[in-house]
Amino acid sequence: MTDPRDVEMVASYADMVRIGTRNMSNHALLREVGRQPRPVLLKRGRAATIEEWVDAAEYVHSEGNSAIVLVERGIRGFDPAARNTLDLAAVPLAKQITHLPLMVDPSHAAGRKDIVPALARAAVAVGADGVLIDVPPTPETALVDGAQALTPPEFAQLMDELRRIARALRP
Amino acid sequence: MTDPRDVEMVASYADMVRIGTRNMSNHALLREVGRQPRPVLLKRGRAATIEEWVDAAEYVHSEGNSAIVLVERGIRGFDPAARNTLDLAAVPLAKQITHLPLMVDPSHAAGRKDIVPALARAAVAVGADGVLIDVPPTPETALVDGAQALTPPEFAQLMDELRRIARALRP
Amino acid sequence: MTDPRDVEMVASYADMVRIGTRNMSNHALLREVGRQPRPVLLKRGRAATIEEWVDAAEYVHSEGNSAIVLVERGIRGFDPAARNTLDLAAVPLAKQITHLPLMVDPSHAAGRKDIVPALARAAVAVGADGVLIDVPPTPETALVDGAQALTPPEFAQLMDELRRIARALRP
Amino acid sequence: MTDPRDVEMVASYADMVRIGTRNMSNHALLREVGRQPRPVLLKRGRAATIEEWVDAAEYVHSEGNSAIVLVERGIRGFDPAARNTLDLAAVPLAKQITHLPLMVDPSHAAGRKDIVPALARAAVAVGADGVLIDVPPTPETALVDGAQALTPPEFAQLMDELRRIARALRP
Repeated sequence: MTDPRDVEMVASYADMVRIGTRNMSNHALLREVGRQPRPVLLKRGRAATIEEWVDAAEYVHSEGNSAIVLVERGIRGFDPAARNTLDLAAVPLAKQITHLPLMVDPSHAAGRKDIVPALARAAVAVGADGVLIDVPPTPETALVDGAQALTPPEFAQLMDELRRIARALRP
Repeated sequence: MTDPRDVEMVASYADMVRIGTRNMSNHALLREVGRQPRPVLLKRGRAATIEEWVDAAEYVHSEGNSAIVLVERGIRGFDPAARNTLDLAAVPLAKQITHLPLMVDPSHAAGRKDIVPALARAAVAVGADGVLIDVPPTPETALVDGAQALTPPEFAQLMDELRRIARALRP
Repeated sequence: MTDPRDVEMVASYADMVRIGTRNMSNHALLREVGRQPRPVLLKRGRAATIEEWVDAAEYVHSEGNSAIVLVERGIRGFDPAARNTLDLAAVPLAKQITHLPLMVDPSHAAGRKDIVPALARAAVAVGADGVLIDVPPTPETALVDGAQALTPPEFAQLMDELRRIARALRP
Repeated sequence: MTDPRDVEMVASYADMVRIGTRNMSNHALLREVGRQPRPVLLKRGRAATIEEWVDAAEYVHSEGNSAIVLVERGIRGFDPAARNTLDLAAVPLAKQITHLPLMVDPSHAAGRKDIVPALARAAVAVGADGVLIDVPPTPETALVDGAQALTPPEFAQLMDELRRIARALRP
């Protein structure tokens, strides 16, 4: 979704509204989602500094919606081994300048499923408040992003690992 | 150390020989450390792909020294919030193309101590075989890198966390 | 302008409609400017490949407006010496995959006026069809971007140089 | 050449000594070429800031050799369309902090011959003191870099264009 005129319709069906990485600076869209009641996932732009990303949330917040979750999903890098460079330092760095919850999306960062579990574990260990994992019921028939999706059994195993890390870090 | 003529002298004192990020492609130096018996820490170049980094280890190995540890220490990025962009995906990606042990250096990646513990936890969770942490006995009088160094008590607390994560991930 | 609902109003006053670098992938906006008759300046996103940039023009074109000018204005880089890294190779590379005219914006790339003339000369020499130069009548009172703006006399001198380069390259 | 022990031999045959991009920070090599009489080509590292590049020349100069030419040859970027991102702004920016001559190497930046002439023209227009162009007598049998090399007739035509630009910019 890039059009502010679609926000009302989307919000009437969705539990949460997502702003994609290519629209982090689409201020009209940010303001429009700030005027509706659903919580907002705000993905970091591929070339956005941490400060620019946190600032973007202000466009949503200033319209009255403070239910915002920031999502680190990888920045543009030079190595073709992964689709993007997941910047996990962004989690503790952003936490110093905002109280908003922070999630990590290892699926879109990697673009390949084999390293998604390792990145998800790192996300929990670095202090993320949650992870976004692609788990279509039938990855082989997914219209997009099939290569990065976990199967339900793989996801169940990963969740078990993530819970153990979270417990290990509990004070 | 950048001079192959210094290798013998360094190796006569040091337990391990370190090749810094700016010399990952200094082939004369790589070959020379390949001809001495101490284990070698090979840091990833700031603009090196994972493949180029693993290939650099071949220069050491081809001279007979196979005791090589690869170290991810951050690549050059656009965000001034941290000194480098720690690329933790490099750990599982490199493990697919090499059997060499892989360590992560969060201190040099961050250049600031406040996020070092979080990055070290993430390094263990992503599958690193070890971490390099700057811990001078007296950080305030360290000649270099004081800003990124942990005190001994901070280090002790971090080690406790790292052990708990490692245990949580044990099968 | 990021809001498609503003396009009609803007187009009623402006001679040309500009899509800024942060909205190169704002598809709703691209489609809306494709439905109005003014020519469109489409700036390259800071992290967009040349292929993604040329593809973005398709969103405008597919709605019926083919009067599109592509503008290279610098990509995100690691060196703080300039605000962005002007990618002049993008001009000949883009010309291989599109027939649209290509302009270069050295003012926004540099963020500082001292190197704007040199970059503008290079833009003409590399084959750009035009340059965008910030020249407010009174730079010292400009609301934004004053540091990168040329004065009218500086601009006149630059135009003289650019004409001489263009003539020198005429077959 | 990466080994300081090879410098004397190389200098006994070569008219000029080249330090490649991967060895810009090989300080032992820089110091050694500073102790011999041949002029030195110092290529910018792929992830080096302009300041780091100019600083590297100090290692040569401090040993007594001030015949140094700095060469911009492209920095690491995210777009696979070219091998590197040629940073032509580096020429006027470096000229503000050094009096050393500055050349541009469009062949290695591009990695493909089709855009070499356009980049060479831009290099002259931006103020470079020279260009490095790959022109093997027989490109089809060149051992390396054949894809980026011009034939002698292509080179002759390019030189004609470069002379015309240089003349056009003469005060």
